[in-house]
Amino acid sequence: MQINEPEIVAEVTQQVMRYEQALVNNEIAVLNELFWHSAHTVRLGASENLFGYDAIAQFRSHRPTKGLQRTVEKVTVSTFSEQLACAHVIFSRPGQPLGRQSQTWVKIDQQWRIVSAHVSTLKS
Amino acid sequence: MQINEPEIVAEVTQQVMRYEQALVNNEIAVLNELFWHSAHTVRLGASENLFGYDAIAQFRSHRPTKGLQRTVEKVTVSTFSEQLACAHVIFSRPGQPLGRQSQTWVKIDQQWRIVSAHVSTLKS
Repeated sequence: MQINEPEIVAEVTQQVMRYEQALVNNEIAVLNELFWHSAHTVRLGASENLFGYDAIAQFRSHRPTKGLQRTVEKVTVSTFSEQLACAHVIFSRPGQPLGRQSQTWVKIDQQWRIVSAHVSTLKS
Repeated sequence: MQINEPEIVAEVTQQVMRYEQALVNNEIAVLNELFWHSAHTVRLGASENLFGYDAIAQFRSHRPTKGLQRTVEKVTVSTFSEQLACAHVIFSRPGQPLGRQSQTWVKIDQQWRIVSAHVSTLKS
C-alpha cells in the first residue's frame, strides 16, 4: 500500500482547505457536498453526536452564522492507497480552548468525501 | 469499492473490542500494538494532542491505572474496501458527560492498525 504519496496528499489537502473555507464562510452547500451522502456517515461535533448524512445536513441548516472564523494552527494529512486519507486541523478562536478536527476521507465514485468527522476542544 | 462487506466489518469489530478490553484492563502492550508504529499516527485525547507513535506510547506509559472502566453505549464500524475502516464508540462513566472515541483503522502489512484516534466528551 502506498502511504503519503505526495500527489494524493496534495489532492486531499486541497479538499481539506476547501472545507475550511466553506466552514468559516458558512457555505453550507459545500459542507454538505463534502460529507458522504450515506446513513453510515458520522459527525461527532463538540456538542452533538450525529449519525447519518441526514442528521448532519439537518444540523447544518440550523448552524449559527456568526463567530465562525477560526485560525488554523496546524494541518496534517496522511494518505493510504489512493482512496483513503486522515486529516487533522488544530484551530484556535480568541478566548477559547484549542480546537481539534479529525476527518476521514474516502474517494468514493471519483470524489473525495468525509465519511467520519470528530470535533472537540482540548480539556485543560 | 466494496463498502461494509460483512466479513470485513466483523474482522474490524473484533479488533475494536480487543482494543476496548485492553483499554479498561490497562493492557498497555496491546494498546501500543494496535496503534500504527509511525511518525504519522495521530491520537487526539481528551486533554492531549499526540502526533506520532512515540508520543502516544510515551503518554500510555504514564496512564493512570484506576477509573478505567467504562460502559459501551454504542459501537459503529464502517469499512471501505478490505483495507480501511472507521469505528466509533460512545461510552459512559458514572457522573461524567458522554464520551466519544473515533478511530480510523487501516490494514497495513496484513494487520489492522489504528492510524488516527480522537477521544472527547460531549459538551452540554
